[in-house]
Amino acid sequence: MILEKIKSAADLKKIEEQDLPILCQEIRERLLNVVSKTGGHLASNLGIVELTVILDRLFSPEKDRIVFDVGHQCYVHKILTGRNDQMDSLRQLDGLSGFPKPEESICDSFIAGHASNSISVVLGMARARTLKKENYNVVAIIGDGALTGGLAYEGLTNAAQSKEKMIVILNDNEMSISKNVGGVASFLSLIRTRNTYHNFKKIFRDTLGKIRFISNFVHDFKEKTKKALLDDNIFVDMGFDYIGPVDGHNLQALNDAITYAKMLNHPVLIHVITKKGKGYQPAEKNPSLYHGVGKFSIIDGRIKTAQCESYSDHFGKTLSSIADKNSNVVAITAAMSDGTGLNVFRKRHPKRFFDVGIAEGNAVTMAAGMAKQGLIPVVAIYASFLQRSYDMLIHDVSLQSLHVVIGDDHCGLVGQDGETHNGSFDVSYFNSVPNTIVYSPSSFAELDYMLNKAIDQKDKLVVVRYPKGSQRDYQGCSIVDTDVVSRGDDLTLVSYGDLFNESLKAEELLRLKNISVENIKINTVKPLNVTPILDSVRKTGCLLVVEDVCEADCVGKQILAQLSGKLLFRYALYNLHDGIVKQGSVSQLYAKYQLDAHSIVDNALKLKGINYDGS
Amino acid sequence: MILEKIKSAADLKKIEEQDLPILCQEIRERLLNVVSKTGGHLASNLGIVELTVILDRLFSPEKDRIVFDVGHQCYVHKILTGRNDQMDSLRQLDGLSGFPKPEESICDSFIAGHASNSISVVLGMARARTLKKENYNVVAIIGDGALTGGLAYEGLTNAAQSKEKMIVILNDNEMSISKNVGGVASFLSLIRTRNTYHNFKKIFRDTLGKIRFISNFVHDFKEKTKKALLDDNIFVDMGFDYIGPVDGHNLQALNDAITYAKMLNHPVLIHVITKKGKGYQPAEKNPSLYHGVGKFSIIDGRIKTAQCESYSDHFGKTLSSIADKNSNVVAITAAMSDGTGLNVFRKRHPKRFFDVGIAEGNAVTMAAGMAKQGLIPVVAIYASFLQRSYDMLIHDVSLQSLHVVIGDDHCGLVGQDGETHNGSFDVSYFNSVPNTIVYSPSSFAELDYMLNKAIDQKDKLVVVRYPKGSQRDYQGCSIVDTDVVSRGDDLTLVSYGDLFNESLKAEELLRLKNISVENIKINTVKPLNVTPILDSVRKTGCLLVVEDVCEADCVGKQILAQLSGKLLFRYALYNLHDGIVKQGSVSQLYAKYQLDAHSIVDNALKLKGINYDGS
Repeated sequence: MILEKIKSAADLKKIEEQDLPILCQEIRERLLNVVSKTGGHLASNLGIVELTVILDRLFSPEKDRIVFDVGHQCYVHKILTGRNDQMDSLRQLDGLSGFPKPEESICDSFIAGHASNSISVVLGMARARTLKKENYNVVAIIGDGALTGGLAYEGLTNAAQSKEKMIVILNDNEMSISKNVGGVASFLSLIRTRNTYHNFKKIFRDTLGKIRFISNFVHDFKEKTKKALLDDNIFVDMGFDYIGPVDGHNLQALNDAITYAKMLNHPVLIHVITKKGKGYQPAEKNPSLYHGVGKFSIIDGRIKTAQCESYSDHFGKTLSSIADKNSNVVAITAAMSDGTGLNVFRKRHPKRFFDVGIAEGNAVTMAAGMAKQGLIPVVAIYASFLQRSYDMLIHDVSLQSLHVVIGDDHCGLVGQDGETHNGSFDVSYFNSVPNTIVYSPSSFAELDYMLNKAIDQKDKLVVVRYPKGSQRDYQGCSIVDTDVVSRGDDLTLVSYGDLFNESLKAEELLRLKNISVENIKINTVKPLNVTPILDSVRKTGCLLVVEDVCEADCVGKQILAQLSGKLLFRYALYNLHDGIVKQGSVSQLYAKYQLDAHSIVDNALKLKGINYDGS
Repeated sequence: MILEKIKSAADLKKIEEQDLPILCQEIRERLLNVVSKTGGHLASNLGIVELTVILDRLFSPEKDRIVFDVGHQCYVHKILTGRNDQMDSLRQLDGLSGFPKPEESICDSFIAGHASNSISVVLGMARARTLKKENYNVVAIIGDGALTGGLAYEGLTNAAQSKEKMIVILNDNEMSISKNVGGVASFLSLIRTRNTYHNFKKIFRDTLGKIRFISNFVHDFKEKTKKALLDDNIFVDMGFDYIGPVDGHNLQALNDAITYAKMLNHPVLIHVITKKGKGYQPAEKNPSLYHGVGKFSIIDGRIKTAQCESYSDHFGKTLSSIADKNSNVVAITAAMSDGTGLNVFRKRHPKRFFDVGIAEGNAVTMAAGMAKQGLIPVVAIYASFLQRSYDMLIHDVSLQSLHVVIGDDHCGLVGQDGETHNGSFDVSYFNSVPNTIVYSPSSFAELDYMLNKAIDQKDKLVVVRYPKGSQRDYQGCSIVDTDVVSRGDDLTLVSYGDLFNESLKAEELLRLKNISVENIKINTVKPLNVTPILDSVRKTGCLLVVEDVCEADCVGKQILAQLSGKLLFRYALYNLHDGIVKQGSVSQLYAKYQLDAHSIVDNALKLKGINYDGS
């Protein structure tokens, strides 16, 4: 095994060039072995094997700054930079992260998780290098999908103007998570049809071998090559040098192009064409399915985890049905039509379905324009990515009281994807958005009820927040804003969303210990009706709130503020603290943050001053 | 006067073509008369007179949707759409807004204030029109400055792909508020040097006159014209038809280009070159000075309001001095080097000064890259525009504990610019950003102290928030996190920032009424040290908090949450409610929201249950 020889980034440089194809094959096998057991991002990592090998050979990842955009394509880089032994812990509690993490390794230059930031990051790094008179390379690797984000464009235009030495590698696999959309896709497809790399290759081979160390010639060579390569395209318009398209599975071609780019002292973009899922038939055929995948059988690609209907799936179905009856309803996604369950809608109502690409800001502002002219736009985005639209939610929607519906998907804890993907902040940030209603269902039936109610609203931003995964034991349908589900005298227990399942269990367990719980379920998180809670706490003198969002402006604190000064009582709030929650399974994290039924029981007993045995 | 004949949008269409130059002259005089008295945005409105006249003639602003980007260039449009009589109330309390407001007139299609949203908005409107089978035109007017924002790019690429009939007018005055920067500026300057409009004009004149109503020919004509016009530029790469550059002060040229564009059934961009301040010498010479201006003398352009040093000015100076001693300090602005006081820094440390254009997201993410590599970036942005960076603050800075300093300028109330520009939300949104410290100075001395402290921090996002305008009576320097400034027994009064001046006055006034105030000034808004407040309320039993931010997660509520359950007390919180505060002078708005000294006195007496005479 060649891979076994690579214990650190330096070892990769010692591998003979002729052994690289074998190494790539071994890496692919390793990826399959790991991801088939841990789950994770498979297709994108299979596609970037050769590119990562060449990058980690030509650069020194401990010193040079290689910045992955989005970052789920970093597994190969982790394997090659001293972490192969730990790959089996990928995405597990206390294991390797599925995304680049500087705290994990010096070879991970920057955090990743949200799309389109890498060019701005390397621009900042390049400027730091220049001002501090240091000497290292900066490289961004960004997918064609992430290029649809406005932040990438801001980065590109600023980087071009900076004239700083930097390399941006466009990893073009002709799709982001869903099929790529927008003008970006069309100009990329235009560029792909050109064939400039072959010109480049010829010049490079003919010339570079002879003059590599003769600096006078190098300048001439650069100028000549530039003229040959600089096709008139959008990157050149912006001020980047452009090399490409380069076959991303051809080690020699990648080596040539990146070696050349390294010689330049200004911003250069290398356009690399890769194939998602490369080398593994099931993933090549269906890259979407193997984008983020659970455990699967390597032999036939069969996915092992049973696919329960998720909240996202259910949301998509219900919205499609609503749209059957209401022709004004349209659906918008930001490159996540699979993830948000809108595929169903897309098929049933193709003319009323809009995928804007990874462009959450545009999704919300376009929705505002639609709402202004009488449509009812429903925008489904993961809570964490929706942070990108915070200003648009305020400025474009809420200031003029437009009726836009938000499917606030993957709210709360998401599990293995970790801190960049948790929806920890949504309750807090939506609370500051004026003219907004926030519903939080705990079952599919409630999701249906609330989504219908959201569509029927007027002049308001209406948010329906629902978690990753499926509904659990509770499958009722509560329709009041703050619902006292069970009466009790000893403790007021408040929860909402998925955690109501834990409250229900805790209520039962506490009953066995002769603690009578007033179990309150919040359905409308904003505006918050605190009256039933106030009445309850007057009776019980004891309040316990569990919620899987950050503590800033959490519902528990809002309740405390409204009860403040009026009565004396004991309380305990459990939540996600500052909102940074690392990877683990959701149930592990519930336990860690004391949000599970057993923790609720323990903490209720503590709050009541009752000795308990911890069981 | 021709202008007097125009009482509604329809009247403009009745004006003879040969009278339009006179009308434009009258409009310019009217603009000068109004803005010299009310203050406001002068240069941009002088620059867009001809363009607005042609737009409001060729379209029906009650039905067609004309969407201004940023929006401060809407005065001419207001004059021409039935609001000329009300122009003297511009930007005053209960008067006409200085920005488009749909609630003010049906001719204002959409709210504006933050840059770069207009293309997404018209795209949404166009899609609504098509789906609802309605028939109207949609037009976005966007400046070259706003084109640097990522949202504009997201809108452009999506609009191009939509193939919807729409017109985007690029109002290119070769600068945004500060000098335009980035790749956008360089490709625009490239385009400007071409001369395609003349070709267009020739074809248009030769052909269109003859065939205007013969549809078969129109198709041929369009195809021919397209070929002649479609220069290979970035807009064409994205999928827009391109017309331009067009002289934005030539009525005939504008009329021809827009008439042609109206005939097309797909996205078209008209590139119009205008001159900021056109027709008024002082403004033409110094458009930055007359961008947003106070009262001035029309004769010589002399600005009447005395220019006190503002917090922004002071911030810029102090930061320059800090940078003299610390070579790692760099400054970043998003197209506001004047507004944020960073001009001083730019001159003294040009290599350490970075204007990223209207690209707040990139400003923060680039800063994160710089911080990762050892610089100390200070990003100065107005609180309201910083909302665009909410996700970048969390994802790129705070998740990996980077040390970035934010100059959170224009926090709280800004006065005449109204609801789109108030910094109403900053305390709320920063409270949810992990690893963050927020300082709130009430004087220049405190700004200096806190900015130095912010620079000296490590591993934290540190925010220094300061208002528009200058320091007031209080000029002390308090250095503890929560400072009990005066001891008293009857009432705990809490404030921070500029409002501490009102608290000081109220304390004096209440003393005359024998109410002894414990006056507490918060210097560190996050993390909030509530202990001195808790101790005080235990003594006084009575809490009054004033703050000029929205109520969601305001400091008052945070205090209530922390005091909750522990003691019985009376309280009253005064703040900006949901955060939407319309225009008016800051002192008028303080009174309206009961934040001024007299309101504090009245409310304190009420809280103490004391009869008062309201004086």
